[in-house]
Amino acid sequence: MSDSSTEPLDTQAREEDYELSPRQVMAITYAVERGDAEALAELLEPMHPADIADLLEQINAFDRGRLVRLMGDEFSGEILSELDDALRDRIIPLLPKTVLEDAVRELDSDDLVDLVEDLDAPEAILDALDDRDRAAVESALAYPEGSAGRLMQREVVMAPEHWTVGDAIDHMRNADHLPDQFYHMVLVDPRLHPIANVTLGRIMGAPRAKLLRDIAEEVFEVISVTQDEGDVAYAFNQYHLISAPVVDEDGRLVGVITIDDAMAVLDAEHEEDMLLMAGVSESSLSDSVADTVRARLPWLFAALAAGIAGAAVISQFDEAISAFVALAILMPIVAAMGGNAGTQTLTVTVRALATRDLTRANIMRVIRREFLVGLLNGTVFATVMGGLAAVWFDMPELGLIMAAALIINMLIAGLVGTMVPYVLDKLGADPALASGTFVATTTDMMGFFAFLGLASLVLL
Amino acid sequence: MSDSSTEPLDTQAREEDYELSPRQVMAITYAVERGDAEALAELLEPMHPADIADLLEQINAFDRGRLVRLMGDEFSGEILSELDDALRDRIIPLLPKTVLEDAVRELDSDDLVDLVEDLDAPEAILDALDDRDRAAVESALAYPEGSAGRLMQREVVMAPEHWTVGDAIDHMRNADHLPDQFYHMVLVDPRLHPIANVTLGRIMGAPRAKLLRDIAEEVFEVISVTQDEGDVAYAFNQYHLISAPVVDEDGRLVGVITIDDAMAVLDAEHEEDMLLMAGVSESSLSDSVADTVRARLPWLFAALAAGIAGAAVISQFDEAISAFVALAILMPIVAAMGGNAGTQTLTVTVRALATRDLTRANIMRVIRREFLVGLLNGTVFATVMGGLAAVWFDMPELGLIMAAALIINMLIAGLVGTMVPYVLDKLGADPALASGTFVATTTDMMGFFAFLGLASLVLL
Repeated sequence: MSDSSTEPLDTQAREEDYELSPRQVMAITYAVERGDAEALAELLEPMHPADIADLLEQINAFDRGRLVRLMGDEFSGEILSELDDALRDRIIPLLPKTVLEDAVRELDSDDLVDLVEDLDAPEAILDALDDRDRAAVESALAYPEGSAGRLMQREVVMAPEHWTVGDAIDHMRNADHLPDQFYHMVLVDPRLHPIANVTLGRIMGAPRAKLLRDIAEEVFEVISVTQDEGDVAYAFNQYHLISAPVVDEDGRLVGVITIDDAMAVLDAEHEEDMLLMAGVSESSLSDSVADTVRARLPWLFAALAAGIAGAAVISQFDEAISAFVALAILMPIVAAMGGNAGTQTLTVTVRALATRDLTRANIMRVIRREFLVGLLNGTVFATVMGGLAAVWFDMPELGLIMAAALIINMLIAGLVGTMVPYVLDKLGADPALASGTFVATTTDMMGFFAFLGLASLVLL
Repeated sequence: MSDSSTEPLDTQAREEDYELSPRQVMAITYAVERGDAEALAELLEPMHPADIADLLEQINAFDRGRLVRLMGDEFSGEILSELDDALRDRIIPLLPKTVLEDAVRELDSDDLVDLVEDLDAPEAILDALDDRDRAAVESALAYPEGSAGRLMQREVVMAPEHWTVGDAIDHMRNADHLPDQFYHMVLVDPRLHPIANVTLGRIMGAPRAKLLRDIAEEVFEVISVTQDEGDVAYAFNQYHLISAPVVDEDGRLVGVITIDDAMAVLDAEHEEDMLLMAGVSESSLSDSVADTVRARLPWLFAALAAGIAGAAVISQFDEAISAFVALAILMPIVAAMGGNAGTQTLTVTVRALATRDLTRANIMRVIRREFLVGLLNGTVFATVMGGLAAVWFDMPELGLIMAAALIINMLIAGLVGTMVPYVLDKLGADPALASGTFVATTTDMMGFFAFLGLASLVLL
């Protein structure tokens, strides 16, 4: 082995949690402040484009503008493709034409598609591309948004199904150009239908005379070009795929999707589910106040409508409340317990739908389970809170009313929390969509109705 | 190319969304019913172990037991490692000793670790292993749970830093045994410190005389064996890694982590965040009613405590409520609007912390933004709902009280929704942990207090 004079550049593992350090951010903003392009370039040089993109998202708009201008042609296409959609739209106009052109020219065609499809005004970028790249991007854009066709890369290393390991090695070693990232050879039949995947590692380890098909992967999933990217991400995660061939309607190989793209989709789908359940359209920390308000207002209006419906229920029982203020004091508890139980069930259901664990085969069993869980939890809290209410206001009847209302509302919570997302999913909608608001509205209204209704019957 | 008589096994891309079809499930349960082992084997043969595991999760406990017994030694280690933790604990005792032994022997050491670490009684499995595998599993278990050491595979294909492409190819082609899945050679210095990654694809495409270090990947992340698996998953997603070397405290190469494992961790972390925010400890659809109740009760007790605190606030204003029932009708709206706005902010914050987008560098700007968003949203709903309240009850003062209370509560919601998860994170806790309950409690109490307090001051 060589002498140890060539010191390793960076063999030290990072113990921290990959957060940009405040010191790093401060050093960079200080360099920007002084307009010191050289110091800035030195500070950014060791940083990954994804981290530079994060930095741009974290600093304020004024510093961001100065930083981008000071970077000049150090601003790379990779930074651009790592940026948040909203921020990208604001940064592109800041880039001089030549910098933008250089930046996008260095990108692979799948990254270009990713960049162009989210852009409000993609012409600036399309114009900068050479004819071949532009044609590739435009043909990818012909596939529906969010489809496998948008996600795949077009360059595929393939081999006829009768080739041996030796044929494959010779072919690859003599190829003019191989894709930058590839992990499998795809075996195809004479009609270009993919037959199997062979990993490069197995090709390396096998004798030259061995047939490729004899060392193919056991697990082999073919993806249709029109398949939804969420399904693609699911398939990669479920079947531990590293790359998968993509075929057109005739089953012919047209591209390949690799796991790093599937992982990014999985992450984005999770984000969407989480935000949708909470009632936020897409969001980013670098959004302006106006964008943020716009993303949240519609959902809050839905919540207001739900609140007014609840208030309308309460107003039907104003006599009972005037007679017994205890009802006003206790009724939010009935609503809140139902809301909490409903949110628990809802979240479990949305997750189970995302992982394809909840299907027609087991929906009835899951509903039965949620019913029993609601009954049991309801009984527990009926006992605790019913007892407490009876003692607090020295009214045994009030305790019984509280207990009955709690059991009713927690049963409803379990049913609604399961059924609403399931039905939304079967209707082809996103099960996370607004189901939070719907469940909360139902448990609020039913909670008020059951509690105040029973109280009117018994106490008045 | 060969004649087309060898028909492709499965070239048809699946258009459906990877859900098990009810027909498939019915055919399988029918075979189980008849005790027809042959028909069952035929139905299960084309299925991926992950899908068989999903099937076991979806059918009821009685059918599950019969199915496992009928499968006999067709039950593979892969199915076992794809199963849910809770279900795995229930299925292992159903397996005959020889079937279990055969099943675990076929697993790779990283899958074995994954299987053993979640088991209530791992001895049954450890006993079935040969000495080498048991030693590998036991040394992996010496690393903390959830660390990179548990995630990595030990077999690494490495090369001295001075090797050429020719050296690498000869080495791999002459190796007795190569790992089943590998995508890079890791270059190491004489002290076994990893220096760089070279993809197999580039080795295939480069001239034999080329130095490996000249075709190394530009992006290179080294992971410490004690690093948290969540951080590892983040690094893979952020830097688009396919595999990364793992080093011990002295920086020596001890293993490698591949992206498929990182993707599974990312998915599990998302699930945890989602469930924690909703107040559910780990959950699965195959959990029994008792397990489900146990996973949800603690959080519901927290919600009850929060509800009682809210009731205590309301009870301070019983005089005002007796005098004006309108207060009881409207107060849930103030609380609910704050709760919804708080949940929105909370979700955005938890997500931003997970993606390392929220740091000390921008927390003050984010808080300022949330304050402004709360003020704007509050003003919108103050106008709408204040006006509505004034008209509904024909009391202009009530409209003004409603408006003021809404603005106050939505401001508080924005601040609490940002601060609570951020502080939890800085204290080293999971920011999703119970922050939902805390935010809802605060907005409930502050909503009731602001609305009823103002009403007492103005109206009484």
